[in-house]
This record gives sequence, C-alpha cells and structure tokens, in this order.
Amino acid sequence: MVSTPVKASDPLPEGTREALRYASTATITTQLLSRGLRNQFMQGVRALNPAQVNMVGVAFTLRFIPAREDIDVLSVFQDYDHPQRKAVESVSPGEVLVIDSRGQQRAASLGHILATRLLHRGCAGVVTDGSVRDSDGFAVLEMPTFAMNPSANTNLIQHHAVDMQVPIGCGEVAVYPGDVLVGDSDGVVCIPRHLADEVAEAAATQEHLESFVLSRVESGHALRGTYPPDETTRAAYEAWAAENPWRWPIPGSTPS
Amino acid sequence: MVSTPVKASDPLPEGTREALRYASTATITTQLLSRGLRNQFMQGVRALNPAQVNMVGVAFTLRFIPAREDIDVLSVFQDYDHPQRKAVESVSPGEVLVIDSRGQQRAASLGHILATRLLHRGCAGVVTDGSVRDSDGFAVLEMPTFAMNPSANTNLIQHHAVDMQVPIGCGEVAVYPGDVLVGDSDGVVCIPRHLADEVAEAAATQEHLESFVLSRVESGHALRGTYPPDETTRAAYEAWAAENPWRWPIPGSTPS
Amino acid sequence: MVSTPVKASDPLPEGTREALRYASTATITTQLLSRGLRNQFMQGVRALNPAQVNMVGVAFTLRFIPAREDIDVLSVFQDYDHPQRKAVESVSPGEVLVIDSRGQQRAASLGHILATRLLHRGCAGVVTDGSVRDSDGFAVLEMPTFAMNPSANTNLIQHHAVDMQVPIGCGEVAVYPGDVLVGDSDGVVCIPRHLADEVAEAAATQEHLESFVLSRVESGHALRGTYPPDETTRAAYEAWAAENPWRWPIPGSTPS
Amino acid sequence: MVSTPVKASDPLPEGTREALRYASTATITTQLLSRGLRNQFMQGVRALNPAQVNMVGVAFTLRFIPAREDIDVLSVFQDYDHPQRKAVESVSPGEVLVIDSRGQQRAASLGHILATRLLHRGCAGVVTDGSVRDSDGFAVLEMPTFAMNPSANTNLIQHHAVDMQVPIGCGEVAVYPGDVLVGDSDGVVCIPRHLADEVAEAAATQEHLESFVLSRVESGHALRGTYPPDETTRAAYEAWAAENPWRWPIPGSTPS
Amino acid sequence: MVSTPVKASDPLPEGTREALRYASTATITTQLLSRGLRNQFMQGVRALNPAQVNMVGVAFTLRFIPAREDIDVLSVFQDYDHPQRKAVESVSPGEVLVIDSRGQQRAASLGHILATRLLHRGCAGVVTDGSVRDSDGFAVLEMPTFAMNPSANTNLIQHHAVDMQVPIGCGEVAVYPGDVLVGDSDGVVCIPRHLADEVAEAAATQEHLESFVLSRVESGHALRGTYPPDETTRAAYEAWAAENPWRWPIPGSTPS
Amino acid sequence: MVSTPVKASDPLPEGTREALRYASTATITTQLLSRGLRNQFMQGVRALNPAQVNMVGVAFTLRFIPAREDIDVLSVFQDYDHPQRKAVESVSPGEVLVIDSRGQQRAASLGHILATRLLHRGCAGVVTDGSVRDSDGFAVLEMPTFAMNPSANTNLIQHHAVDMQVPIGCGEVAVYPGDVLVGDSDGVVCIPRHLADEVAEAAATQEHLESFVLSRVESGHALRGTYPPDETTRAAYEAWAAENPWRWPIPGSTPS
Repeated sequence: MVSTPVKASDPLPEGTREALRYASTATITTQLLSRGLRNQFMQGVRALNPAQVNMVGVAFTLRFIPAREDIDVLSVFQDYDHPQRKAVESVSPGEVLVIDSRGQQRAASLGHILATRLLHRGCAGVVTDGSVRDSDGFAVLEMPTFAMNPSANTNLIQHHAVDMQVPIGCGEVAVYPGDVLVGDSDGVVCIPRHLADEVAEAAATQEHLESFVLSRVESGHALRGTYPPDETTRAAYEAWAAENPWRWPIPGSTPS
Repeated sequence: MVSTPVKASDPLPEGTREALRYASTATITTQLLSRGLRNQFMQGVRALNPAQVNMVGVAFTLRFIPAREDIDVLSVFQDYDHPQRKAVESVSPGEVLVIDSRGQQRAASLGHILATRLLHRGCAGVVTDGSVRDSDGFAVLEMPTFAMNPSANTNLIQHHAVDMQVPIGCGEVAVYPGDVLVGDSDGVVCIPRHLADEVAEAAATQEHLESFVLSRVESGHALRGTYPPDETTRAAYEAWAAENPWRWPIPGSTPS
Repeated sequence: MVSTPVKASDPLPEGTREALRYASTATITTQLLSRGLRNQFMQGVRALNPAQVNMVGVAFTLRFIPAREDIDVLSVFQDYDHPQRKAVESVSPGEVLVIDSRGQQRAASLGHILATRLLHRGCAGVVTDGSVRDSDGFAVLEMPTFAMNPSANTNLIQHHAVDMQVPIGCGEVAVYPGDVLVGDSDGVVCIPRHLADEVAEAAATQEHLESFVLSRVESGHALRGTYPPDETTRAAYEAWAAENPWRWPIPGSTPS
Repeated sequence: MVSTPVKASDPLPEGTREALRYASTATITTQLLSRGLRNQFMQGVRALNPAQVNMVGVAFTLRFIPAREDIDVLSVFQDYDHPQRKAVESVSPGEVLVIDSRGQQRAASLGHILATRLLHRGCAGVVTDGSVRDSDGFAVLEMPTFAMNPSANTNLIQHHAVDMQVPIGCGEVAVYPGDVLVGDSDGVVCIPRHLADEVAEAAATQEHLESFVLSRVESGHALRGTYPPDETTRAAYEAWAAENPWRWPIPGSTPS
Repeated sequence: MVSTPVKASDPLPEGTREALRYASTATITTQLLSRGLRNQFMQGVRALNPAQVNMVGVAFTLRFIPAREDIDVLSVFQDYDHPQRKAVESVSPGEVLVIDSRGQQRAASLGHILATRLLHRGCAGVVTDGSVRDSDGFAVLEMPTFAMNPSANTNLIQHHAVDMQVPIGCGEVAVYPGDVLVGDSDGVVCIPRHLADEVAEAAATQEHLESFVLSRVESGHALRGTYPPDETTRAAYEAWAAENPWRWPIPGSTPS
Repeated sequence: MVSTPVKASDPLPEGTREALRYASTATITTQLLSRGLRNQFMQGVRALNPAQVNMVGVAFTLRFIPAREDIDVLSVFQDYDHPQRKAVESVSPGEVLVIDSRGQQRAASLGHILATRLLHRGCAGVVTDGSVRDSDGFAVLEMPTFAMNPSANTNLIQHHAVDMQVPIGCGEVAVYPGDVLVGDSDGVVCIPRHLADEVAEAAATQEHLESFVLSRVESGHALRGTYPPDETTRAAYEAWAAENPWRWPIPGSTPS
C-alpha cells in the first residue's frame, strides 16, 4: 500500500517504457482509477510542440517558491550552481524534469537555451505547471515539453528555485522523484513508481483491446456488445490479437 | 415571446440549415441581440479539429452531475443502458449532442470511441462545457466537436450521467432540446428553436451584405459610408447582390 | 525617473524599430527587469495568426468600460464617430491599437472588418485583453493581432468604447500612448517610450550574444562556462561577432 | 454499494437526526472518507446567520439552468406554479431546500420572503451554491441558510428554475433527493441516504471521543499518546464515557 | 433612451434620496430590470462596517490603471495634487467616491486616513472594486465603505491613479459621474442618473408593498394569493397603506 | 543584498517584537516597499478570531504537497511522527506555524485539536494559505490564526505533509524559516529576518507619526500640509512626540 522508495537514478525496465509508449494517458488513468487513484492526471498542462507529444520518463523534480526581490536578482545566474542550472545539469538520460511552479504563470519556469541543454543530456521531457519563454523555440524542440502558457518574463520575476529531488506538486498532482511520467496530446499522467510495471502492462493490454473495439465502431458496430466488449466481441478480439500482438510496433497502428 | 415546445426529433427545415451554414456565429449573435437575447454564445468552448469547425444541428441534451465514488465505479459501463451510452445511441442524424458538464474540466465528458459511434450515427456534432479524452482522435475526427480542454481522466472521476433530453446549461447558456446549435471558429451559439428560421434568414442576409462590405474595406474604403453601409454603399450592394445572390454557394466565396 | 511625455504621433527611430524586430520579448523583459521594471509583459494575450506573431509599434490606446443596455444598442454604430470606429480611423501607420477590455472575454473587442481597415491604414498590430470575433479572419490576417480568446458576441454586449489616447491597462500592464509594443510567440511586452531606444539596443545586443550561446549549447557545451558566458566564451563570441554583426539580417539567422 | 432509492418524504429516524445534530461536519467527512467518499463537503457555501449554523435535514432539490431573456421575464412570477415558488410550497417539515445554482453568484437564488415562507413550512434549512438577496433578512432568519455571497439581483437575471426533486450538483457535490444534509460553521456536508444511520452513529461516537481528547489537550497533554488516543488514553476515555454518555445532551457540552 | 449628461455637482432631489434610503438594493435592481437594465449591481463588493451599510449618493469617479515601478514611487505622495489625493479633496458632500480598481485586490485602493478625510468632507460613501488597508479603521468608520477584501499593500504596488470624473467600470458595472449609488447589506447598485427619480419612487412603493407581503408571510400565509399579491391581497394592502404611508419613517418599520 | 541565514530558533529581540506589535501591516508593507520589496503581503488569508488578530512571531514552516490516495490514508495518523503532528510538537514558543497549502482550500490544513496543542506550546499563531476545520473552535481560540476559508474535509483528502523548516510559499509570498510574520485585521506580512529590526523600528516610527496625522485629519485638517506632513505639521508632530513617545504603551493609543 505504500510507495516503495526509489532512487531517481533507478532505470525504468525497457519493457515498461515500451508498453507506456504504446498506451495513451486516457488508458493509463483508467488503470490507475481501477487501483483507487483518481488524481494522477495533471491539470492545465499541454504539449508545446505538436510533433513531440509522446513522453515517457522518470521524474527528476525541481521546486520553486515565490521570488523575493532582494534575493532573486539577475546576478544569481552568474553562479553555475544556482539550483535551476544545477538541476538541468543533473538530469540523467531518460528522466523528465518536473517543475513545481505552483500553477503560477506570470514568469517562465525556463527558456529555450536550458531546454536545449536538457535535450543534449538525453532528458526525456520537461513538465511545468507554469510557463515557458521563447515559445517558438519550444514549438520545434525535439523533446516533449508540457507547460500551461508562454510568458516572456524570466523566472526571477516570480520564482525562486530552491531544491531538487524532493517530492513536489505539479498540476495539483503529487510527484515523487522516480515516479513515471507519461505524456500525450491529452497531457501528462504521473504513475507512482511501484505501480509502473503493472500499470504499463495492463494499459498496453487495454489499449490493444480498445484499438480493436475502435475498429469495430469505425466499421459501424453499435456500442451494445462492442463497447465494452461482450463475450462475442472479446472472442473476436482474441482471435485478432493472436495475429496482431500489441508488442510494438503493432501492424497497422502508429504507437501513440 | 415564449419558446414554442418542440420535439427533439422535429426536422430542421433544409433552407434554415443551409442559411445557418452560410452564416457566422458572430452574425447570428448580432441577430439574436437585435431580438433582445444577449447570452446565447457559449463561454469557453472551442473546436477540437481545425478542419471541422462548421456545425449546424438540433440539440440533443445530456446532463451530468458530480460523481460519487460508490456509484460511479468502472463496472457501471458494463450496463449498455448507462445514460451516457444510451444518449449516444439515441442521437438522431442531424442532432448535436450537448453535454452539461458544469464547466468542470478535471475529467473527460467523453472519449474518442463514443465520438466515433456518434459520427456513424450521423450526429451533427458534440458540444461539452467540459473536457474530452483521446484528443488526438478528436483532432482528426470528421465531425465538429467543441470542448474546453483535454483531460485524460474518464468521466466517472468527476461526472455522473443522470438524464437526457431535459433543458440544461452549457457554457452558461440555456439549451433546450430542439434548440439549434451553430458552431464555427469562434465557438458555439444556441438559437432558440422558435427563432431559428427567422434568425437564419436574417443572418444569411447580413452575412451577404457584410461580405460585400468586407470586399470594399479590403479594397481600401474608409469606414465612413461603408461600415455600416450608407445609402450609396447599400445601393452598390443591391446591384452586386442582384448578380451574386447569397444562396449557397456564393460565387467567389467559401461558405463559412 | 519619470516618463517623458510623448505624442502618439512621434515617429519611432528606424534603428530602434529594427533592433526590436530582432529581439524577442523574453530578452526585452530581461532588459526591463535590469532597469527595475517587472510588470511589462501582458498576461493572457496570444497571437491569433501563427504566421504574424512579430509586432513592433507605437501604442494608440482605446478604452472600454462595461456596457449598459440603454446606451449600448446596435444603432450606435450608425454614428461613424462612435469612439471604437473613430479610433480605427485615427490610428497612424506604425501604431498598434491597444484596447483596454478589462480582461473580459464574453464579448469581442472588435471583428474582422475593423481589423481589415486597420491593416489598410498601415496599423502595426492590435492588442486587446479581451476577445475578437470572426477569428478565422484573424487567423489569416496579414497583421499581428493579440487577444485572449475568440467570442462571437459583438462588443456592445459587454463593452462601451469611451475614449482614446488616454493611459490604460491591458493584460494588467500600464500602457501610455506612445509606449512601444513588441509582440512575438510568447506574447506582448510594453516598453515605456523613454526607455525604447536603450532597451532596443541592449536587447538586440543580448539577443546576438544568446544566439551564439545557443549555438554552443546546441553543439553540446555544458552550461558551466557557456550560459551565462564566462570570459572564454565571451571572447569566442566577440571573435564570432566581429564576423557576424547583429544588424539585420544576421547571416544564418531568421529575425525573430 | 449502490444508493438505495429513497422517497423525499421518508422520515429520518429521530436517533439519526439527534446524533447528527451532535456531530460536526468535520467528523462526518472523516467518517465518509473512511467509507471511501472524499467529495461530500460542499465547496464555497457558508452560513448566513451566525446564530443559526447547525442544520440537519433531508434534501429537497431544486434545479436552475441559465436564464434566457425572452422566457425569464418578471411576469413569470404571476404564475403561482412557477417551479421556484412551487418548490417552496412543496418542501415538507424537516427537509432542506438544496438549490443547484451552478456556482453562479451574479443573481440571487432566492430572497427573504420565500425564505420566510420556508421557515413557516417547517423547512430545516436552505443551501444554494449561488447567492441570496435581502441578506440582512437572512442574517437574522431563524432557520439555517447557506450560500456563497449576497447578490441583490433577482434570480431571473441569471437563473431559470426548471425542475425539482431530481439529482443535482451543489457546491460540486452530488445531491440526491432524500440525502441527508448537515451544516455547521464549517459549511455543509451531504450524506448519501443509505449511509445516514451508520455515519450518524459513528460520527457521534467519534465526536464524543474527540471531546475527551480535546479536554486532555486543553489541559496540556502532548499529542503523543493522546491524539489519536493510544490504549491508555482510550481506557481513560472509556471510564469517562461510562459516566458521560454521548446521548444528547452531554453534560458540560453544548450540542454542536 | 440615452443618458442625459449630468454634472457631478447636480444635487439629488431630497425626495429621491429619501426614497432610496427606504428601498433595498434588491428592490432597486428589480425596478431596473423592469426597465431593461440587468447589469447594475456590482459584483464582489461588500460593506466593511456592519453598522454602516446603508448608502445613497452621487457618483464621483476615480480611475486607476496598473502601476509602473519607475512612476509609482513613494515620493509621488509628496505632491498634494496627486490624482488620488486631489480626488479626495474634490468630493462634495453627498457624493460617493467610486474607484475603478479593475477588480484587482493585491494592493489597497485607499487607507483609513484618506477615508477619514472623506468623512469630514461630507462624503456619502466609498466604493472600490479592489481592496482597502487599515481595515480595522474601516470597520468602525462612520461612513459606508464597500470593497472586495483587505490588503495592507499601498496602492502604488498595483495601482496608478490617473484621472477623475470620467466614466469608469466598478464591479463590472458602468458608472458615469452623477449616477446614483445605493448600498446595503447585499452590496451596491448603480442607478443611471436620468432614471434615479422614477426608480426611487417605484422602488419605495414596491418596498412598501413587500413589507406588507412579508408581514402576511410571517403570519403564515401561503405564497398563493400573497406573493405576488392577487387582487384580494392588494386590496388589503391598499387599506393598510392608507393608514401606513411609505414616507419615511414608516410606522413599525426601520428604514433600510 | 542577500538574506543572512538564520536558525529558526534564533530569538527575536524583544524591542523588535514590541515595535512590530505596535505597527500595522499597512505600515510595515510601506517600509518594505521603500526597501524594494513589493510582494511580502500574503494574498487571501484572514484572521479567524476577530478578538485575536494581532500576531508577531518567527516562522516555523510546514510544507504540503497534493495527496495520493494510497499513501494518504486515515491510518497514517496512528504514527505520532507523521510530519504534520511532528511539526506541531516542534514549534517553539514565539514561533508562528506557517503552512504551504498551495492556496488549495478543498481540505483543511489543520483542525481545532492541533491548534489547541499549539496554543499550549506557546505558539504565536498559525497561517495557512488553505483551510481549517472546526472553525467555530478557531473563532474563539486564544491564538491568532489566519486562513482562507473553512473546510470540514481532513487534510488527507487534498494534502500530504512532507517536510518542515524548509523555505516555502504561502499566499504567494516566500517564507524562509526564521522570517518574521506580523498579522492584523488586514492579514499577514512576512518580513525577511535580516530586515526585521530596522523595519520594526521604522514602522513603529511611521505609525507614531501617522497616529498624529490621523488625529489632525479627524479634527478637520485638509490633506494639504497634513498628509504627508509638511514642515509645519512635522514640527507640530515633533513637539507632540516629545510628550508622547511611541514606546508601548502610547498614551491614548491602543497597541495594534
């Protein structure tokens, strides 16, 4: 019942990562609901690059508090160990930088240069429940980033980076370092790390079934008997699935 | 002065439907304002598929109330007569499914499979003052859908479908079953059914005049005398209109 | 320390205009912060035409107050000297029409016909902390326009145009006639007129340096030593800059 | 697991009513949480008369949708069977009138004359997730009423009373006719009818224990061992409780 | 149909002032609705001194825009002609100072010293759709003041006083200099000046009738026949009214 | 320019504490503004007990993140070392417990039993940018407490206590352990610890002067020459101050 402590550097099993790449956030939230978790989908964040919406990675957290004018001055960035900069240089490949911006959007959580550095470090994505600046850069960045809105203001105007790799809130969802974040065009869901493997497997299985159900509905079947599938439909699915296993890539299907 | 009771299954005259397809929501709200109605444009909803923004149809309503954890469990969907599913299978061709989600966006009002079924039933569109899930599916669905935001959460997390074909609110606009809904890139307007024919005619006429006014402004005319048209401009319009009647398709004009 | 009074018709020096066209709003807000100004970026407005996001111009202001049903009737538009219409016909080439809509989005601040007229007058752009109608027209208009949301309702439903060329608020930023507005994909920043020249120069210089820093980060440099640049990086920049001055157009760079 | 259908006229057992009068909404929500219900406390409503905050009663529901100017005219009140008026004259003694105002506060859900009539009918209280008018009257009314804010506007300006005794939302909580509503200075909680008896008993028991715990803390005990009570404290409580049973009135205790 | 221009110094007829003192804002908004005005009640403001909620006066307006750090410095108050100070010293007896604070509550619109000065000048009250500071002073000030919330911050932190006696918005209601403002425990309503006399008379008459209706309901009459009054009730009222005219003071009635 | 690190247990000099007890939050924010700090007043919190609004103390911080259903279960309170409980038992006399509730008000940050324990520990007050439960208990508690709203829900429904004595945000103000919090009827201001002594002295001095200015205004003086005081008024103040020093208690003055 409790979340097993994980180190942020624990690798995510490749099978889990692959299954999550195949599953949508809608399917994952349903799997989490069936395990009693109703509040894992972040409110208000959206993908900034329409060509980079699919994200799977392990949470590396960064916490902001409100700025104070005498501390949060432009000269702090002369310090390469400033927490925001240090966080960027600490993210490992496959990790997602998740920033607690308290839902405040008046100033940017980060800009395009830092995001570019994260891309080079192999970062799997960025999520902030705040803003980003240089949004034209983010719109074409080859790494998924999720935020609320653009804001040109530098973070110092509203935010003070205070610590990293502590539990945080983002989009009013609890995020513990090591949790698994999945993003798509709906937004971002956070899977508690100890549930990641089983949810990934179950979600991919559900996704596979639903892709069959969808094809039935697309060909004109009514909901009754089809969605959810009754025994007949489920049998038809099993037959189809025997030929079309979900393991990526699915024939005739683009991994979401 | 009162709204004539209409049955949801009453067909909308084809001329009315055609005129409304030609008119923008901006023009329709002006016509409604001239009849004393100031609150027919829904706040906060937008088209999900940029290629499917133009919608005309008759309201079929579905009402949600807040969810309760002991009632709104995943197993309810095993019942093909669950109100949400029943509503989907009750919509007639040419109708728009309008969902009262109380402006709440934490969970989706519906997902892509149900929307696909609606498309197959000839549904003219979907409007919810809430969220949808599987938004990549909606982004390419060949049916206009309007919502506030994406949310991956299934509706059970926040909503309980309770009844259909009752008067509802959507986007803080009153919607009675049988009212006429028109959507475009600005959003969705609700025309009380008893006004639909006259508003359609007046809006199309105004639209035709404004397309002429716009062409004048595009060619450099000042507002004075042109917008609104004085007698001279109106005479020029009449001459042009004699050659270019508004009946769809207008020469040199794409129906909005 | 005080804002030098400027007349709205004062021309903006061409060098200033060119430098601002080269600088992003992110860079400009940083320059303003270094001069003690933390609240010059408008909250909540965004470009309506993705192909027309870059805007530089001098503020021409228009003020709205809430509408009253007995004054704000459709017939007021018969008066070509109605303040909204008069404002449109008073904007000079190179000016940006900035509308104080009190952040209210239920009705449109203006529509496509007036915007088209502004385009013909050489207007440099439109900003409103409210809505626009006919948003498909704005989506392709060859002039930058910034607003919060679309709304089909005509302005009379919520707004009353009351006066022009007075100091206003827009997006909770103070805008004085003659201030300089710059827009890009992040949104809109307002530069007090007396700071425009020095901020423009400093921002373009910073932008040039950051384009070099970005290229370093893109080629794999860590933040340490690079961002912000230490003496070594700065020397490398100086060498590069000697060959690649910022004056527009920069070789290998698209002006933002 | 499902809510047993109840008729709004079913009497609430007197023991249940008495126990609920003794229990605070804080205690009741904890009991509901232990049964898996996390969303039974209404957001944003507060008692209007500080001398009348304790309320227990059975839900009688009234539903509002947004107003429409041509239907919601002052003359509708000439009809004594208008749904709002009819609801007032249908409430039975011991019932609470719960109004779904969609959280909208621009116009009042009801005024002082109707509330006075409800008082005379033996109504146990009124709850609306909207406003009331004549708030000085409500401030001294001898019946608990809960609302968000005062608003002088008559309901017709924003609301249309449409039906009664249907499931509704209020303060983003599901309310079914027959559910049990309890109010105090924190606000209002809704207990599903089928849980009312057991929750009432458990809440009163917990309240009794916590009154003992509070007295310990008031006399200087540390939390450790006291809150929650360990075996020693619990034994002390049992001894005390043998002399001081919770059945109302508790010696030395004012029923909440 | 248009608002007759009035000078802020025009005296309000004493009979009108007396009638408005007798009428509630609820009754006045109903009278305004019957004349087609649905948006005259300010949203979100409340009386700060419970013993000083009844206000009648003529609008003297003051307009704020957002602050700018280089202009809005503490030294500006050295200038006794600063617009905020000048406005305070310009208000005439019987006028209400109405401040357009754009609904922004982070900084105070004014404090206790200025309010005390207004009291000494015979000011009839203060309304701001923002905050006040020194709220303990306002809580006992012998002049009605209406605001949203307390905020200790001086106005310079968010506001810049720019001009006075221009049309403004307050609580999203249009206020023209010379309009008549009435406050009570529900809040504040703005009566367009040209309607003040007729609305005052009609409201007092309605109030008188409703005081009779209320007494009937208090003595147990059902709504049917009583509220609204049918011919029998109206005849009873007429008989009562012949003995108890509304002219202040009404026997057995406290003027609201 | 930087905040000197302080230990939460550092005692606040008694003279500083006394001066702050004499000064209002309005005066303190003005002193902070004159030192360049514009964002030290917490947004949205208010005193719960009208007889206990004056608070001075040193910040002891507690941080909440969003709850997760599998971790935040009722049984966690069996652990007396649960962070919320541990924080309560760690607060030293003269400290204020400041809770970062992210501005979320659906569940209570704490209830009356914990607050009573804090009172017994000599705690100087409680501030949360969230809710409290058992608000009738807080309304009479003999310790200042500041919150946004009441909510009956236990904190587990929305909050997870994660750590203490770290920098936090509260009411969108940065609070570092050891900062000095001052509360009154306007709300709560946070003074950075290194500025506490000088701000206290300056604020008390300003307060003393303003009490003289207020007495002048109360006796009918116009603002000109009086507020702010010119040389003549200042001389009169100096004479009065020589007889009436600010050191508490001031003759004829109640310490705020």
